[in-house]
Amino acid sequence: MSTGFFGDITKIKYEGPDSTNPLAFRHYNPDEMVGGKRMEEHLRFAVAYWHTFTWPGGDPFGGQTFERPWFDDSMQAAKLKADVAFEFFDLLGSPYYCFHDADVRPEGANFAENTKNLNEIVDYFEKKQAETGVKLLWGTANLFSHRRYMSGAATNPDPDVFAFSAATVKTCLDATKRLGGANYVLWGGREGYETILNTDFTRELDQMGRFLNLVVEYKYKIGFEGTILIEPKPQEPTKHQYDYDVSTVYAFLQKHGLDKEVKVNIEQGHAVLAGHSFEHEIAMANTFGIFGSIDMNRNDYQSGWDTDQFPNNVPEMALAYYHVLAGGGFKNGGTNFDSKLRRQSLDPADLLIGHIGGMDCCARGLKAAAKMIDDGALKTPLDARYEKWDSPEAQKMLRGEYKLDEIAARVEKEGINPEPKSGRQEYLENVINRYV
Amino acid sequence: MSTGFFGDITKIKYEGPDSTNPLAFRHYNPDEMVGGKRMEEHLRFAVAYWHTFTWPGGDPFGGQTFERPWFDDSMQAAKLKADVAFEFFDLLGSPYYCFHDADVRPEGANFAENTKNLNEIVDYFEKKQAETGVKLLWGTANLFSHRRYMSGAATNPDPDVFAFSAATVKTCLDATKRLGGANYVLWGGREGYETILNTDFTRELDQMGRFLNLVVEYKYKIGFEGTILIEPKPQEPTKHQYDYDVSTVYAFLQKHGLDKEVKVNIEQGHAVLAGHSFEHEIAMANTFGIFGSIDMNRNDYQSGWDTDQFPNNVPEMALAYYHVLAGGGFKNGGTNFDSKLRRQSLDPADLLIGHIGGMDCCARGLKAAAKMIDDGALKTPLDARYEKWDSPEAQKMLRGEYKLDEIAARVEKEGINPEPKSGRQEYLENVINRYV
Amino acid sequence: MSTGFFGDITKIKYEGPDSTNPLAFRHYNPDEMVGGKRMEEHLRFAVAYWHTFTWPGGDPFGGQTFERPWFDDSMQAAKLKADVAFEFFDLLGSPYYCFHDADVRPEGANFAENTKNLNEIVDYFEKKQAETGVKLLWGTANLFSHRRYMSGAATNPDPDVFAFSAATVKTCLDATKRLGGANYVLWGGREGYETILNTDFTRELDQMGRFLNLVVEYKYKIGFEGTILIEPKPQEPTKHQYDYDVSTVYAFLQKHGLDKEVKVNIEQGHAVLAGHSFEHEIAMANTFGIFGSIDMNRNDYQSGWDTDQFPNNVPEMALAYYHVLAGGGFKNGGTNFDSKLRRQSLDPADLLIGHIGGMDCCARGLKAAAKMIDDGALKTPLDARYEKWDSPEAQKMLRGEYKLDEIAARVEKEGINPEPKSGRQEYLENVINRYV
Amino acid sequence: MSTGFFGDITKIKYEGPDSTNPLAFRHYNPDEMVGGKRMEEHLRFAVAYWHTFTWPGGDPFGGQTFERPWFDDSMQAAKLKADVAFEFFDLLGSPYYCFHDADVRPEGANFAENTKNLNEIVDYFEKKQAETGVKLLWGTANLFSHRRYMSGAATNPDPDVFAFSAATVKTCLDATKRLGGANYVLWGGREGYETILNTDFTRELDQMGRFLNLVVEYKYKIGFEGTILIEPKPQEPTKHQYDYDVSTVYAFLQKHGLDKEVKVNIEQGHAVLAGHSFEHEIAMANTFGIFGSIDMNRNDYQSGWDTDQFPNNVPEMALAYYHVLAGGGFKNGGTNFDSKLRRQSLDPADLLIGHIGGMDCCARGLKAAAKMIDDGALKTPLDARYEKWDSPEAQKMLRGEYKLDEIAARVEKEGINPEPKSGRQEYLENVINRYV
Repeated sequence: MSTGFFGDITKIKYEGPDSTNPLAFRHYNPDEMVGGKRMEEHLRFAVAYWHTFTWPGGDPFGGQTFERPWFDDSMQAAKLKADVAFEFFDLLGSPYYCFHDADVRPEGANFAENTKNLNEIVDYFEKKQAETGVKLLWGTANLFSHRRYMSGAATNPDPDVFAFSAATVKTCLDATKRLGGANYVLWGGREGYETILNTDFTRELDQMGRFLNLVVEYKYKIGFEGTILIEPKPQEPTKHQYDYDVSTVYAFLQKHGLDKEVKVNIEQGHAVLAGHSFEHEIAMANTFGIFGSIDMNRNDYQSGWDTDQFPNNVPEMALAYYHVLAGGGFKNGGTNFDSKLRRQSLDPADLLIGHIGGMDCCARGLKAAAKMIDDGALKTPLDARYEKWDSPEAQKMLRGEYKLDEIAARVEKEGINPEPKSGRQEYLENVINRYV
Repeated sequence: MSTGFFGDITKIKYEGPDSTNPLAFRHYNPDEMVGGKRMEEHLRFAVAYWHTFTWPGGDPFGGQTFERPWFDDSMQAAKLKADVAFEFFDLLGSPYYCFHDADVRPEGANFAENTKNLNEIVDYFEKKQAETGVKLLWGTANLFSHRRYMSGAATNPDPDVFAFSAATVKTCLDATKRLGGANYVLWGGREGYETILNTDFTRELDQMGRFLNLVVEYKYKIGFEGTILIEPKPQEPTKHQYDYDVSTVYAFLQKHGLDKEVKVNIEQGHAVLAGHSFEHEIAMANTFGIFGSIDMNRNDYQSGWDTDQFPNNVPEMALAYYHVLAGGGFKNGGTNFDSKLRRQSLDPADLLIGHIGGMDCCARGLKAAAKMIDDGALKTPLDARYEKWDSPEAQKMLRGEYKLDEIAARVEKEGINPEPKSGRQEYLENVINRYV
Repeated sequence: MSTGFFGDITKIKYEGPDSTNPLAFRHYNPDEMVGGKRMEEHLRFAVAYWHTFTWPGGDPFGGQTFERPWFDDSMQAAKLKADVAFEFFDLLGSPYYCFHDADVRPEGANFAENTKNLNEIVDYFEKKQAETGVKLLWGTANLFSHRRYMSGAATNPDPDVFAFSAATVKTCLDATKRLGGANYVLWGGREGYETILNTDFTRELDQMGRFLNLVVEYKYKIGFEGTILIEPKPQEPTKHQYDYDVSTVYAFLQKHGLDKEVKVNIEQGHAVLAGHSFEHEIAMANTFGIFGSIDMNRNDYQSGWDTDQFPNNVPEMALAYYHVLAGGGFKNGGTNFDSKLRRQSLDPADLLIGHIGGMDCCARGLKAAAKMIDDGALKTPLDARYEKWDSPEAQKMLRGEYKLDEIAARVEKEGINPEPKSGRQEYLENVINRYV
Repeated sequence: MSTGFFGDITKIKYEGPDSTNPLAFRHYNPDEMVGGKRMEEHLRFAVAYWHTFTWPGGDPFGGQTFERPWFDDSMQAAKLKADVAFEFFDLLGSPYYCFHDADVRPEGANFAENTKNLNEIVDYFEKKQAETGVKLLWGTANLFSHRRYMSGAATNPDPDVFAFSAATVKTCLDATKRLGGANYVLWGGREGYETILNTDFTRELDQMGRFLNLVVEYKYKIGFEGTILIEPKPQEPTKHQYDYDVSTVYAFLQKHGLDKEVKVNIEQGHAVLAGHSFEHEIAMANTFGIFGSIDMNRNDYQSGWDTDQFPNNVPEMALAYYHVLAGGGFKNGGTNFDSKLRRQSLDPADLLIGHIGGMDCCARGLKAAAKMIDDGALKTPLDARYEKWDSPEAQKMLRGEYKLDEIAARVEKEGINPEPKSGRQEYLENVINRYV
């Protein structure tokens, strides 16, 4: 029954903070109640199929380091990979997973073959999901690895690539619906440019707007009830990607009339590469009403590429979850580990250990965040800081009931000459450190 | 008549490329025709009052290095500074200048004093402008240096600061109108945050939206015919500024219904700090229809703060002007040198030399750009690259006349399987190098 | 007796982890034993005179925000400042402080006046130290703020500046000796360049080598028993500083025969700006045998300038202290807070709160580090990883007893074909998270 | 005879600056005399075998885009690749090339097979070199791509990997000698760490020191007359590489007694990633007496990974060649293009176009640099800036004939109180712009 890949490792259990067992949870306890909800339902963890099962350990200066029995491009290997994957979800106790079409099926010679291969695997996954109870957090199409996409998918100068991409997304959205996916994600890995010299922004952004509208229309047509998510990233693989960050995506969504239809899947590593903190991007998405889901990982602050490491800094993660909770918590979204082992971490056990560490850190972050919410640790001082805006005069000013010259007249007449007040940053940083 | 500050330096003349006179132009020749327009009218150079006349040469680790006779806070000193400034504009042959209120008038004890001081200087400037023919490219209010603004101006948690700021902008917009300014700029130097822990994005962005609407309404009320410009910058002085880059500003303008009313003033150094090239930001603004003006300088790519150096890399500048011209050239906008001398450049002549070098580089960049436009050097290969999109089928797809499943059916039926074509980046880079 | 500056704040006490009193320690408990030594003796905290008492809250875009009664340039103000400073050391329970000459005395018109002013303050400090028991961790000369140093101190193109700088260091070293300083620090704030175009590296590095040799010779002459420390920093204020990082300093020390004489004072923020982690720099200094002391602060990873914030990330700090302890702990060195309040933190209490938070985080970091050492948490797996090097054959190879061709012959003959082993990074990261 | 790969492209000729032929040189004219030497002998161009003939166009998010007939791992393919390579050198007129063992031979199952395969190719190259007159600038061993090196080569925790690496370098140094290579390069692609948690710096740096000593000893044993070069790089592929930059390498060489034996091969892209300009690293190597050779390319300043693009910014390149010439020009070294096509540049002609553009830019840079040297454009103002150091008093101070207290006494007695002088940065920048 078991593939044997994980040897004699058995289901990972919660053993509490004092455990030194590397194959046990110390903080993630799925049934523990946090702020009135089970921890598992709060965090909604997902395993990323690509990093965990398909990445060979290569980097720009070296090839494969991992040796997995399913590393060939046959359907049989794809099914062995699926067997190991669902075994992994079960060992780990991950309630969800995420995948690209290209992660799960052999590459075909053309669109028809790709579709056929994908559908055969979707049948297989459907059965596996039923057997294990594992669910799909989101599906997506890989529109960036194959050489046909080298100059973009939706934004390609060749409309045939646009069409091929559209067809592929149609297939993947169908698959996601069949598998009961809670979301469908678009990450524009090649939607951007290598050089502005050969690129027409106006054309390409129009193409991209049309593409996204096609997807949203089709979602309604087939009755897919999940959320359509865009995943921002500033650069890499391209020199410059159009979905740079949350604000850029919001500009694009407004322009194309989609700001009520599409939300964002925010990745820690992408936020960092764009010059933002993770919590900044989450809070900004809350402000714009487009928060959807997160890709939890960590980017080395001092490596300028996407390092996709497992997260391990609890103080930072607590702030991220604080803003997730402050926005009402996940609805369709969840915590997908878009994290990969370092290429030197060769052992099957390392796959589990990476996820266990990440899940434990998320659990610690979540608990700290929930406690801060409960205590009003940040909200109370925040409300106090802005309280003068609650006055009737201030509210009238904010609603536009005074014009610029009226305000000026008032300033002059009343001799308004405000004195600054301490921003108390160090105090608030110390408060956070009480919780983490 | 002359203040004597510049010694025996006389009006800077064009002497042609072979000149080795450091006090002559080698490329900037105001009357030379470029693409059917005088070079001066193309470039619309402006001198920045702040860097050139008020900056004392300090940095975070050291104090004043420049010793200028007008460095005190009296009205008399302010007038001496104005005398030197207009003398400088004349020596340099700069047709425009730009200023903040705080650059030109002594700081008063309150709003009324500030207004009085400003108005006295505006009278003085008005006369100077009439005498010299020098014009105002834009005016602006300094809402970031005084301690009252330490937590923001429009986005301050104290509505009195909002009011004080609004009153100040009213005054400055009045002044700009009186002086015939072609634009009015808002740079949100403290509109952002030092820590997200004490900041409420939703409130602050609403405040900022209201503020900008007040300004636009007032512009119409007084019949100011210039353009209102926002100047994006990602960070510094704050950890994170709301007007991060052109796309972020565009998101904000759309949200607040101002995307037809307000344009952007793009600074090279700010573009670079946001992770973009200057030409990227200009081209993006063209695509969004919000391009206004530029702040020409250069940021050291390897210093993480705003270095505001005089520009000197012609190949890069040519690409910036290429996109300015490709968008139709400046209308109200122009080329403001938001550049300051290095703090070791103590001599009055250095002020001229910095500007001369910058203007010469701009002239070289402009000429290269105009020639590229004339030759279709970039446009011809660009049109060829996208030409398949001009086919009727592609156009129908782009207009939304095919749905996602219809496209998928066509891909399958027609066996569409596109082959990639060379992006020719190195070829295009070599083409550019023919012009610079 | 008291200056009254801190109002009714009384001596900060340890109240344990559950305290919510912002003016109490939650983790720093000076007398608590950690690895056989009192916590206070381990950490050897020092307050930085400059950030805490002289910085006015300015930044490149705004002026003073703090209003301190001692902000004028008289001797009387300098003494009031000293009164407040020693009051602060006492309230906080900081056993040490650090200062530059320019922090503590009024600026004189020339070298003689500077010396006289400094000596008057040193007399005053001597008395204060005796009264309070507070000690001097290190003294230093400010050779970067005054305009005479704008082009460098030791590396100035003008030998008179070299001489002035040498004279100033002589005075400051004398003062440090009188005050019983445990170290003397040189930070080369202007030893570097703004542009390579006007800079001769060979000359300037020779000047710098001579300067440092002068200092070391003088140390012996006067019998100063402290350690001479260089503080590396990669850039800011200059575009490029010669003491870029620990390795660069080590190259310089070897070149000038000083690698046994001079050690390094490593600052977290400077390490980060140089592209390194704090623990990297500490461990590298241990490897080179030049570890001296630390400046504890935190640099925002996403701000490209020196932000000098109070540290607050315990997991990172634990790794720093781990390497301090792994190298044997501080000898003459200590933990100087080279941290300043954010400029919005106006209240006197903020000064204490910033330091309290930093000290608590250091205490947590130290305890975690000591426990990791005790448990061999990192050392045991490290030794196992390299154990094959302990074999006699490997040791002979390492000692040079085999030549390249002999090794090649052995590889061929024995068919040596090594298989990689897991680097276990995620496992080790999880281990760290057990301690923090 | 011809492989036909380049179609009907014929030998690239110099056609002068007005040519618009993309397959002609506009500035590189090998026989043109520059400063008394033929341009070809100045620049000593080399083609990099790896980027040009073996890179498939992959990146971390996508696979192969290039389709070359020699992309399989047989000896026959390796010879076809060699045929195309020498054809390319001939078409381009490149006098030199560079290679790693792994670029040119099929990967064997073990060391013996690798050696056999390499030697067979070296025979083939020897014949090709004789036929074409093309020479080897440098050879090197690829000790980073194969999974055995994933944790380092010389710095591996497994001494067998050290031995395997040593054996491989022995073979490659033999090959380089046979082929008359002018240099032998070591780039430590995996000599560094992914995490400090599993790394012992002291051990690893000792291993690396031993390794380099072995190589130098062997060089003498076999009578190899070329230069041994280390190529610094700060990070990528590892998080942190030991040979961070020129100064770090210099520290290492001194420590291991090799600073007279080993020089550096400096790459523009690596300099930039380390936070330095290219000219900084060259000038620093000149100062230390360890300048050897350059890898000419360009790193996108805003991409945090090694982009290895063809150089195209002449003003920057002129400064690099200025320092090469100021140090006496290349001896054994040369200009190796460590540059690769963008992965969208699919056509065989793109390979030539990339190199042509690079060579033209180098030629422009060289000519500008030589003219600046001739004119004393930078040296004259530089000497003037430091001239006060030529005085006898200053020289005595620099030679150590005055002690610190003697200097202090002199400052006091003579009332030395230096006034700063303008650093003239903008003037010098304008001077540079006269030449480029």
